[in-house]
Amino acid sequence: MNLEKLIARYKDYRLDILAFNFASYLINWDSDTEAKAGSFDDRSVLESRLTKLELKITRSKGYINTVTELYNNLELLDEDLKIEIKKVYKDLVKSLKVPKEELIAYTKVLSKASQIWSEAKLNNDYASFAPTLKQIVDFNIRYSKYLETDKLKGYDVLLNEFEEGMTKEKYDEFFSLLKQEIVPLVKKINALKIKKPEWANQEFDINKQKEFCDYLMDVMCFDKNYGLMKESEHPFTSGFGTHDVRVTNHYYSNLLISSIFSAIHELGHATYERGNAEKLNFTFLQGGTTMAMHESQSRFYENIVARTKEFWARHYPKLQSLFFDQLKDVTLDDFYHYINFVECSLIRTEADELTYSLHIMVRYEMEKMMIEGHLDVNDYPKMWNKLYKEYLGLDIPNDTLGILQDVHWAGGDFGYFPTYALGSAYGAQLYHQMKNEMDVKEVFNEPNLKKVNAWLKEKVHQYGGLKTPEEILIKATGEKFNPKYYVEYLKNKFSLIYNL
Amino acid sequence: MNLEKLIARYKDYRLDILAFNFASYLINWDSDTEAKAGSFDDRSVLESRLTKLELKITRSKGYINTVTELYNNLELLDEDLKIEIKKVYKDLVKSLKVPKEELIAYTKVLSKASQIWSEAKLNNDYASFAPTLKQIVDFNIRYSKYLETDKLKGYDVLLNEFEEGMTKEKYDEFFSLLKQEIVPLVKKINALKIKKPEWANQEFDINKQKEFCDYLMDVMCFDKNYGLMKESEHPFTSGFGTHDVRVTNHYYSNLLISSIFSAIHELGHATYERGNAEKLNFTFLQGGTTMAMHESQSRFYENIVARTKEFWARHYPKLQSLFFDQLKDVTLDDFYHYINFVECSLIRTEADELTYSLHIMVRYEMEKMMIEGHLDVNDYPKMWNKLYKEYLGLDIPNDTLGILQDVHWAGGDFGYFPTYALGSAYGAQLYHQMKNEMDVKEVFNEPNLKKVNAWLKEKVHQYGGLKTPEEILIKATGEKFNPKYYVEYLKNKFSLIYNL
Repeated sequence: MNLEKLIARYKDYRLDILAFNFASYLINWDSDTEAKAGSFDDRSVLESRLTKLELKITRSKGYINTVTELYNNLELLDEDLKIEIKKVYKDLVKSLKVPKEELIAYTKVLSKASQIWSEAKLNNDYASFAPTLKQIVDFNIRYSKYLETDKLKGYDVLLNEFEEGMTKEKYDEFFSLLKQEIVPLVKKINALKIKKPEWANQEFDINKQKEFCDYLMDVMCFDKNYGLMKESEHPFTSGFGTHDVRVTNHYYSNLLISSIFSAIHELGHATYERGNAEKLNFTFLQGGTTMAMHESQSRFYENIVARTKEFWARHYPKLQSLFFDQLKDVTLDDFYHYINFVECSLIRTEADELTYSLHIMVRYEMEKMMIEGHLDVNDYPKMWNKLYKEYLGLDIPNDTLGILQDVHWAGGDFGYFPTYALGSAYGAQLYHQMKNEMDVKEVFNEPNLKKVNAWLKEKVHQYGGLKTPEEILIKATGEKFNPKYYVEYLKNKFSLIYNL
Repeated sequence: MNLEKLIARYKDYRLDILAFNFASYLINWDSDTEAKAGSFDDRSVLESRLTKLELKITRSKGYINTVTELYNNLELLDEDLKIEIKKVYKDLVKSLKVPKEELIAYTKVLSKASQIWSEAKLNNDYASFAPTLKQIVDFNIRYSKYLETDKLKGYDVLLNEFEEGMTKEKYDEFFSLLKQEIVPLVKKINALKIKKPEWANQEFDINKQKEFCDYLMDVMCFDKNYGLMKESEHPFTSGFGTHDVRVTNHYYSNLLISSIFSAIHELGHATYERGNAEKLNFTFLQGGTTMAMHESQSRFYENIVARTKEFWARHYPKLQSLFFDQLKDVTLDDFYHYINFVECSLIRTEADELTYSLHIMVRYEMEKMMIEGHLDVNDYPKMWNKLYKEYLGLDIPNDTLGILQDVHWAGGDFGYFPTYALGSAYGAQLYHQMKNEMDVKEVFNEPNLKKVNAWLKEKVHQYGGLKTPEEILIKATGEKFNPKYYVEYLKNKFSLIYNL
């Protein structure tokens, strides 16, 4: 077959697969934001059938041959298609190692899991989630066996799925550096025995919180013609191409800043997806390069930009006017200290920037044991509670505030959590470069984040999956990933805030 | 192949098709309630690809042979499957007459149409919708050509699609009876020159309207574990099996009863779907028998039940307490007269029960001309306005309040409108029987509609697509469809209300 025809054939298959992906994008969006509990049994049958239909294509001889033939002629392809085919071929070779039936059965489990998790969390009933969690973990153990190579085994396989090249060894090194630098800092701050301000313990009207988050969409220049913000149990971002990117948020009347920083975080993800080059739409390079790079962007906006005094010097008056009764006596400085208040607390998503990594380390250690350690599913909560005691010095009052707090494991995402910490470190390295190129204090203080978006689009967003994190970092900052920027950033920032 | 294997094979194909239908159910739900304008171009490409993938199955030799072989062995099938195969075979034979490429292209047009219509309506800009409408009408003209038979041609083909056995001839007869009986009645009532009450022209807080509609869900015993109520531009019902049935509503702060009767109407549809026998889930007999029977149920709840004094004797105090400032001096009797206020008005969905059919007749006459009369798309608004003048004596101030008011044509639903009137007439015939079997005044006055639901479930809902409307009417009322019950019902009701 000539090359032109071969490419046309590939693009035809690709559109088939994208059509299935689009269906599953909206089905999942519906499951996570709207569908009612009573519909999930039927839905799981239908979803697994869709998976089967998609596998019919991705496991067909025609598709496999087309991709393989293109892979064998990489040098003849244009630059973008070459990168895409490399990625697709690699994924294909991997996916062929996993039996189709396993994947179909797993879809069925996953399609009910988030609902079961969400009810278990609501009712503080870990036992009701445990059998599902066991099925998910067991699948991931088998999955890692299917994909193991001489170099990669067990949990490493899963880590590599989310961030190519990352292994337990590298994460252990990264986390031990963090532990070594951050734990003493946290201890010093804790020793100051600073109390959380009283004013934070008020009721903050949820409709006004929504109004402020809507305002933040404009601050972040998020074009509402191409996306929206909705509510769900756990905030997340979901998109399909640059023209349909959606985020969710969750509002607590007694936690003012939770919805604010969740909004900025998710809109950070969304800005990344929206910022992909348009040419990547309808390709498999759309969305972003890796989860860690994705998290680097969400956390860049959430922490590096939006936990600065410059940002709030601009936007605090708006917040204050919305919640005048509650905030009239709270100064910008009070607010700034509050949003950077360091505290060992129970909930990861509510954690401050400094202790955040400790929450990640708990999950990382858990996952190592879950995937490789033969830990019994009934013992997970005990282990969780033990690690929280060890890393954060906390007693866990119940599973809702403990092991049931995150949706990730219900989604089968093992190996994902560590990318949050890695992403923060990528972000700090990018920030170091950004400071060389512009007056960030001025830029963060502008009425909107147009300039931040433009800079990150140029350095990161536009590439989607065209470049690896390493390529992006080298091109943007002149060097490979270096965790020292993250450690420096945290030490400088919090020493300054706490006068250490 | 032995029969058992053949049936298993059919069920396997059926699940494939249902999986595609499920995807398209949620994609459409998303399009109509949530997706943003900027996403529609991409979406239409992906939707038409899904249609293509589904057609690959429904047009495959394997599927066609399986259905045909089962059809040739109907006598060996159990009763339910026999009915399903008859229906599926008939649809298959019809669908094979329409070229695949036409269907795919049409999906693409439809997937953008409701968005284009909705913006045209918002901006009173018929011209921006006209090219799309023309594409849709042209497809329906070609479609009716593909499906025409010796007996059925042109618009009759489309009428028959929505209500088997119905033709222009029969509808003309039905509508001329209605015209003959209703137009004089409307004239008499108009001659009384009764004014709409002043209190209706107040602002009614939308959140309270929502609260009341939520209350109505309970009144109608709608199980919120299996469905929900959301907002959209135009209220509608959408479901997939008995375990996932959703309705939308639209709220106007200056129209109190609009959202109330829309809610009851859509929940009527939803109750029908929820009331299908569980065994019909995952079959092609799920949902209901025809559109007219579906409308008979929604309009039964909306009009026959919920525009009675007995119903409001129970629920008006709740409404009054919610809107105390606005309704404190409005008696039950005032309210009852208001919800049955007869008036020639512009908007079909806001029309009273008596003039409603006149709105339908306008659309019916329009469709005849659109499909058969070579009417130019640019002349539709003129014709619409002319017919409104003729049937309702009204001048149409703009297209938003005129031809752009309904979503149906943007959805390609030609032949649907007349089923609304037919459905009302089915409902009246069922109601006549219901009165023989129970004290309806007592039943409508109960705290909820459990008994109404049970009666309709027994007579209509349980059957889904297992029985034709004719079979249902004969079994329930002892006779074929007879429009006299509808005419009698309307004459009695409105003569009494207006002391004629």
